[in-house]
Amino acid sequence: MPKVVYHYFPCKALGEGGRLLLSYGGQEFEDDRIPSEKWPEFKPKTVFGQMPVMEIDGKQYAQSISICRYLGKKYGVAGDNAEEAFEIDQNVDFVNDIRAKAALVHYEADEALKAKKHEESLKTVYPDLLEKLNAIVVKNNGHIAAGKLTWGDFFFAGMFDYLKAMLQMPNLEEKYPAFQKVIDSVYSIPKVKAYADAAPASVYGF
Amino acid sequence: MPKVVYHYFPCKALGEGGRLLLSYGGQEFEDDRIPSEKWPEFKPKTVFGQMPVMEIDGKQYAQSISICRYLGKKYGVAGDNAEEAFEIDQNVDFVNDIRAKAALVHYEADEALKAKKHEESLKTVYPDLLEKLNAIVVKNNGHIAAGKLTWGDFFFAGMFDYLKAMLQMPNLEEKYPAFQKVIDSVYSIPKVKAYADAAPASVYGF
Repeated sequence: MPKVVYHYFPCKALGEGGRLLLSYGGQEFEDDRIPSEKWPEFKPKTVFGQMPVMEIDGKQYAQSISICRYLGKKYGVAGDNAEEAFEIDQNVDFVNDIRAKAALVHYEADEALKAKKHEESLKTVYPDLLEKLNAIVVKNNGHIAAGKLTWGDFFFAGMFDYLKAMLQMPNLEEKYPAFQKVIDSVYSIPKVKAYADAAPASVYGF
Repeated sequence: MPKVVYHYFPCKALGEGGRLLLSYGGQEFEDDRIPSEKWPEFKPKTVFGQMPVMEIDGKQYAQSISICRYLGKKYGVAGDNAEEAFEIDQNVDFVNDIRAKAALVHYEADEALKAKKHEESLKTVYPDLLEKLNAIVVKNNGHIAAGKLTWGDFFFAGMFDYLKAMLQMPNLEEKYPAFQKVIDSVYSIPKVKAYADAAPASVYGF
């Protein structure tokens, strides 16, 4: 078994998908959670100055979605043909678009402007995006794509609490129960559950 | 040959990579350039309310990077193994990160704030990112990844003018000649050159 070290902040957010997939694949890994005060020291050692970074026998792998796709192929959850692989890619990119749009609002430094942007997004941006995503998950029987478990589900499940924080929608899964189905289908896998039960709590709540 | 219609705005930006790859693959396609005033009418017909959208025999394919990866596989420029495929994915995601960071500044509506953000980014954000990207392209002999022509090159070449506009760096290739090598390696391919020579000028200059 290769030696794997997985570096990320002590939270789930964009790094958890990779941890969940490594667990699913039965790959032991050193879960290196780097607190923000230690990040400046590690940052210059990373390929892009970003985390997550996964090391396999010393070789660095970066970019959260690329890591999930790579592990998905390795563990047989990347679709059975080019059409399914594409559908996962496309739908994950859409999930990430929603996350990025909400992050723009969340990380606005000016509190008054942040409140204004949030109100506008609640009216004109989020409903349409979330309805579209919900329709996709419903159509795929509680999965992100291809009507079955894929690495897209692991990415989504791992970042769901982060997505909710960005959207300021703590009860998002109550409005869209299909989203909860994706999460349950991932976290009910025994190896994934074992990892998640033993993992430290996220310092930011996501 | 399947019937392909490629819908995007009348510019290169995030849609050109797909057009370049279709041309490279020798695939005839209807180059449907939708002006912004017609976009509201077409938007509800698209899977995510976004373009580009590629239709192959009536089936929609969305998300610019996912489309490029899909066409890259189809035309044999997606890496020869899982490691190369990963490297393309990872490096393209990094290019896209740079584009997204610069777009944040470019699309700031408040002109004074935009100028301030641009000055800050010029000092603290762009140099490090561009140096890292340049080092990658130099290491890969004038390519985005894997030391050879891949779909990552087509994506980069197609969006380079857009990237320069977002960064407000019209002479970026003079500072980083390796970037020009990527563009030349794509546009010097006869089928790609034939498409590019015949294509309408982009209405926004990118």
